[in-house]
Amino acid sequence: MAFSPLVDELVESLRCLPGVGQKTAQRMAFHLLERGRSGGSRLSEALSSAMTGVRRCDSCQNFADTEICGICDNDARRNGTLCVVESPSDLLAIEQAGDYRGGYFVLMGHLSPIDGVGPEEIGIERLLARVISEGITELILATNPTVEGEATAHYIADRLDARDILITRLAHGIPVGGELGYVDGFTLTHAFRGRKPLSE
Amino acid sequence: MAFSPLVDELVESLRCLPGVGQKTAQRMAFHLLERGRSGGSRLSEALSSAMTGVRRCDSCQNFADTEICGICDNDARRNGTLCVVESPSDLLAIEQAGDYRGGYFVLMGHLSPIDGVGPEEIGIERLLARVISEGITELILATNPTVEGEATAHYIADRLDARDILITRLAHGIPVGGELGYVDGFTLTHAFRGRKPLSE
Ligand SMILES: [Zn+2]
Ligand SMILES: [Zn+2]
Repeated sequence: MAFSPLVDELVESLRCLPGVGQKTAQRMAFHLLERGRSGGSRLSEALSSAMTGVRRCDSCQNFADTEICGICDNDARRNGTLCVVESPSDLLAIEQAGDYRGGYFVLMGHLSPIDGVGPEEIGIERLLARVISEGITELILATNPTVEGEATAHYIADRLDARDILITRLAHGIPVGGELGYVDGFTLTHAFRGRKPLSE
Repeated sequence: MAFSPLVDELVESLRCLPGVGQKTAQRMAFHLLERGRSGGSRLSEALSSAMTGVRRCDSCQNFADTEICGICDNDARRNGTLCVVESPSDLLAIEQAGDYRGGYFVLMGHLSPIDGVGPEEIGIERLLARVISEGITELILATNPTVEGEATAHYIADRLDARDILITRLAHGIPVGGELGYVDGFTLTHAFRGRKPLSE
């Protein structure tokens, strides 16, 4: 833009957001400048704080502001049950469904040998160590019902095969090929309650 | 989110962007935290600079970093022709078409009595003063081909009726009811070249 390098840079920067192209970035920039400057300043501060302040929980790998997140730090939720999910949005969907009261482990991905993502990259060794040290009695493998999600669940189950741990998978009801984070809370609660041992 | 107030605040803040609801804001926040922290920090700085540093050009009312924008400050573009547009994105579309070499006046809206937007609110008095003081010989009224855009163009034309100024409107070719900012450069160049006196 000939008229403002500051506006240029704002438009260019907005394109780091997923799904935002040139036209959308322009529309967003003009909207903020015309009618949303206080919102824009608030977003600037929230971004700055989050980009530098958000870390991974040492226990569950989820995003957290502290070494140990609020869920891991809650004694009531250390009940011998651990739920393994692929992403923070999956965890969030389960929390919003409101029925599950155990702990979590967030893989931040799934096994994908073709992309160089092995067990170490998604923290599976850390997960296995935690399962043993905390005496977990049920491990719910809530990875996505996709090829990679199933493969990841089976890999974890195989690694724990010799141990006396109940390993479950969420019940059918979740659309095949769909993403956990987009399932409504009602369906998710049913899928949780109907979970079955992996061997069935 | 139970796990991070910083992530909560980031999601909430992203909703100030037009067209961004809760789910999209979540997806954006997680994307930035997982794979785009440098982009997120850059966006934070760009927002902060733009929200505090971007002002209106004293001459054309468009967004600018300085009192007078680069276009108004360019002698070669003070050629007696002034193009009136509703918004910065309209100006941008005309600049990107690349054919027009005169000056601009950006209304930042259109007349809308029902919303309390009169001539003063969109700077029409300032526009008229500029037309006279700069000895403008052709005024191109490139407001949108909508009811409000047409009414705004006619109001400006009426106010200059007694003066010896050629007043034109962009040629047909722009989709009726459409927005100037979304017209391709080729069509826009043709519409510019085919502009006609308002009285025809
Ligand atoms: Zn945690
Ligand atoms: Zn200007």
